[in-house]
Amino acid sequence: MLALISFRSYLVFEFDGQETIKNITDHVKMILEESKVQEGMILVSALHTTSAVFINDDEEGLVQDTLEFLEKIIPNSKVPYYRHNNSEKDAPAHLKRNAVGRSEMISVTEGKMDLGNWEQIFYADFNGKRKKKLCIKIIGE
Amino acid sequence: MLALISFRSYLVFEFDGQETIKNITDHVKMILEESKVQEGMILVSALHTTSAVFINDDEEGLVQDTLEFLEKIIPNSKVPYYRHNNSEKDAPAHLKRNAVGRSEMISVTEGKMDLGNWEQIFYADFNGKRKKKLCIKIIGE
Amino acid sequence: MLALISFRSYLVFEFDGQETIKNITDHVKMILEESKVQEGMILVSALHTTSAVFINDDEEGLVQDTLEFLEKIIPNSKVPYYRHNNSEKDAPAHLKRNAVGRSEMISVTEGKMDLGNWEQIFYADFNGKRKKKLCIKIIGE
Repeated sequence: MLALISFRSYLVFEFDGQETIKNITDHVKMILEESKVQEGMILVSALHTTSAVFINDDEEGLVQDTLEFLEKIIPNSKVPYYRHNNSEKDAPAHLKRNAVGRSEMISVTEGKMDLGNWEQIFYADFNGKRKKKLCIKIIGE
Repeated sequence: MLALISFRSYLVFEFDGQETIKNITDHVKMILEESKVQEGMILVSALHTTSAVFINDDEEGLVQDTLEFLEKIIPNSKVPYYRHNNSEKDAPAHLKRNAVGRSEMISVTEGKMDLGNWEQIFYADFNGKRKKKLCIKIIGE
Repeated sequence: MLALISFRSYLVFEFDGQETIKNITDHVKMILEESKVQEGMILVSALHTTSAVFINDDEEGLVQDTLEFLEKIIPNSKVPYYRHNNSEKDAPAHLKRNAVGRSEMISVTEGKMDLGNWEQIFYADFNGKRKKKLCIKIIGE
């Protein structure tokens, strides 16, 4: 019988562009190895309210499709019509974060994440030009 | 070495309006303190199929934007055209719950939730005038 | 004091149709019983990047509404215009998976899932005619 391990780490990114999608699978794998957790769960959370996390296939066209789909349903160009229209005009970025989701939970078995063959973990930032932080929390044994 | 703590509590709300978004961060904080969990995870789940949970910035305009965006993609006014058109005509409320999501998981470190500076936990109810229950489950040590 | 239990199982489905929504609540219940976990969490994850998991009411009309809503915002018929346009032309299936979500977490108390009266767990497959795998991971004691 082993004790419960609780391990927290952060990833910090700063992007130039307004909207960026970045594959962070290898970053999360390194943190899992560092934690030495063999059985448990990993929570990958975007700590900024204009950022999100999702899991899908890593294909360049699909990343473009994802951004274009979000732009179709939540256009940045309509900003003056949003009520949350402060100096940063970032209402669409907040709504895109809601549409994609704040976090993903991935289970861990025998020291490895339970991901499908094509599944990759992505960080989506809808409001660039500032340092952004993700929290990686692992519990297990 | 400590034993695993498993703690469950409920929040119950009843709203007058058809659609309500409520900040429940302080309610969840109080339940976390009561659980005495220092390291672990909290799952905040909406137990009604016309309710949802999400995490974003607490700004009045943004709350309005969130409801208006959902109404744009899932209009309540189109109810007669939905197939799930029972006596309550609540098909849009069910679809809005799917769009926002049933639950949020938040990790806990040193007795505090790992939330970003502006992150607040919200309960969204799309079909008011009945008692609604949320389940708060905490595991850890 | 009990040891942490970590239990993983899979569900495998193969559907004929292009898009299928299937109630998997009883399958998940059976896996929970097998695990003997009394207090903890269950993560139900779709391991294919064109599949999703969600929790809502089991009503035939609502299942149709869910597929029609997704088709309205992410039309399969627009496939030639998506950039991720490989031989399988499955860009819409990937975007629908993002819209619904990869997984659901359900807490477990006294050996039972904390689900509301009408809550049922669904698997959504947007790209049929191949074997698809779900991962069910349970941790607790």
